[in-house]
Amino acid sequence: MNSDMSRFWSDNIDKLSPYTPGEQPQIANLIKLNTNENPYGPSPKVLAAISAANTEALRKYPDPNACELKQTIAEYYGLERRQVFVGNSSDEVLAHIFRGLLKQQRPLLYPDITYSFYPVYCALFEINFQLMPLDENFEINLADYPIDNGGVIFANPNAPTGIAVELEKIESFLQVNTSSVVVIDEAYVDFGAASAVALINKYPNLVVTQTLSKSRSLAGLRVGFAMAHENLIEALERVKNSFHPYALDALALAGAQAAIEDDEYFHETRKKIIATRHKTTKKLEDLGFKVLPSSGNFVFVRHAQIAAETLFQGLREKGIVTRYFEKPRINEFLRISIGTDDEMASLLTALGEMVA
Amino acid sequence: MNSDMSRFWSDNIDKLSPYTPGEQPQIANLIKLNTNENPYGPSPKVLAAISAANTEALRKYPDPNACELKQTIAEYYGLERRQVFVGNSSDEVLAHIFRGLLKQQRPLLYPDITYSFYPVYCALFEINFQLMPLDENFEINLADYPIDNGGVIFANPNAPTGIAVELEKIESFLQVNTSSVVVIDEAYVDFGAASAVALINKYPNLVVTQTLSKSRSLAGLRVGFAMAHENLIEALERVKNSFHPYALDALALAGAQAAIEDDEYFHETRKKIIATRHKTTKKLEDLGFKVLPSSGNFVFVRHAQIAAETLFQGLREKGIVTRYFEKPRINEFLRISIGTDDEMASLLTALGEMVA
Repeated sequence: MNSDMSRFWSDNIDKLSPYTPGEQPQIANLIKLNTNENPYGPSPKVLAAISAANTEALRKYPDPNACELKQTIAEYYGLERRQVFVGNSSDEVLAHIFRGLLKQQRPLLYPDITYSFYPVYCALFEINFQLMPLDENFEINLADYPIDNGGVIFANPNAPTGIAVELEKIESFLQVNTSSVVVIDEAYVDFGAASAVALINKYPNLVVTQTLSKSRSLAGLRVGFAMAHENLIEALERVKNSFHPYALDALALAGAQAAIEDDEYFHETRKKIIATRHKTTKKLEDLGFKVLPSSGNFVFVRHAQIAAETLFQGLREKGIVTRYFEKPRINEFLRISIGTDDEMASLLTALGEMVA
Repeated sequence: MNSDMSRFWSDNIDKLSPYTPGEQPQIANLIKLNTNENPYGPSPKVLAAISAANTEALRKYPDPNACELKQTIAEYYGLERRQVFVGNSSDEVLAHIFRGLLKQQRPLLYPDITYSFYPVYCALFEINFQLMPLDENFEINLADYPIDNGGVIFANPNAPTGIAVELEKIESFLQVNTSSVVVIDEAYVDFGAASAVALINKYPNLVVTQTLSKSRSLAGLRVGFAMAHENLIEALERVKNSFHPYALDALALAGAQAAIEDDEYFHETRKKIIATRHKTTKKLEDLGFKVLPSSGNFVFVRHAQIAAETLFQGLREKGIVTRYFEKPRINEFLRISIGTDDEMASLLTALGEMVA
């Protein structure tokens, strides 16, 4: 780091390694299977709710407590409003969780392979952590996690593997891990894993986060939320109200609420994505791919003969963008988002040509 | 603090004193003069830009770098895109500034009376600070500020006084205060103060923040920005990309850009507010009020005979909400946002009855 550049910076800012978002290439007719966006778009009721927002909603401050949206989420999941926290994306919700709950004396535990934002938060908030290796099948084994920890976080289903932890195993872990906060990042849960929301009223140290970016197709609106015992939510509210009280703008509040309310559209589109994932998995296996068992809206795949990086480059040349992670243990894999049936047919044709 | 409540919290979360937003009362026919919202609403082009956002914009991630919006702001202020940082409200931008630039060994300096969020950030980020008293006329005297500091921040015009610091005095201070970052929070600058934007290319330690909530009437959309030397902006980008890379949603990006572009509407409405402030000030003085010289979209007033808290309560009973701060030095003042001419006429009638 050039010291002249950083001479006015706070300590440690030059040591941060910020998160790298998946690229958003500006290429016409691109088939974009790299950031796990939902191919079907949000419910038409979301667009209607946003269009209904008028001058008055824009000129005035929004409700800093987001009461209506929290109430809608609480009712949907059978909770109380005070058990719900909302933020400008689940990334922001996670940031407040790391700051408000996971900065402890003992190290935070998380899998060596998981959402790559967790180490970024640890650097920003100066949190000690310990990596817990996935097993040889890329599974999280909570039974291995020492309970003398300062907190536990993992994605379920996990990223970028797509593999889910069964709810029974999560509950067994919560029965013994009672002295630290356990955060389950359920960004992809609606595509096939069992949510731990049902355990919130039993375990006062459990936090479940979700996002509207994936299963509700609102990556462009930036809304995420956390559900937990009200005591944990209170810590998040304190951090958020020390950071920016009005986290969600008037349009995000209106759109998010409409998205949660349109349950029929939600189930219709998530089921289509699950069906496409099943079909795609079968055909990828026919082409010689190993496909990890995915409960997400993506598959994580490895070919017996061809390197993942070669496939990534070859697909890109054909106008199909996937995601390749140049990291230990997973650099032989390609992550492919589940698009429409047509998009997956194009993908399979392209891969078929490359493996032939 | 109940220790059972906070037993899972990170250290120091129980010691935070979060910011208290101005209330948003749900009362019909209320005259709302308590949070400095703009009475005229945003440009019609903002609504058009938001309505034009389609399914595709919502289902996909927005541009994490907000390139188009930054370019628009940069061109408007005669800067380069890399000299602009955008965030989800100027509160968030300020939070990143406190974390990325103002957490230093030496204390941060700010006025004893200013935007009440600054001490909240200092608590959140564990930043040492030293309060610099306003003088007996409630003015900021930068010449008094010791240059052996870890940073300086003040609002210009100041909040809640409305009093502006002249640009010449700011530049004189920058000429001597060259070793720490100077942040000028220009939330209200468009209502009458001279912006320090013109000094950015001369002083590599100057940061100017602005918001679209006030002069562009978009409190509901949550967009703020900072302008500075690219080296300072880089620190903010590093913090932001370690927190949440996609800070602005697709609708906020589109709406904010349209707001900056409609310069004619901007000047028309801000001039109306300034004219109303002048008229209101004169009439308040006729009623026996002392009115601090305001360059904001509010006035800060004290009556010779009647206590501010009494006036606040009396106005509230008449359906007019203003803001009263129960704090040393300013607990004799009432802050009144500038609404429409009709709203101010109602205010003056109500005050006339109370002081008669």
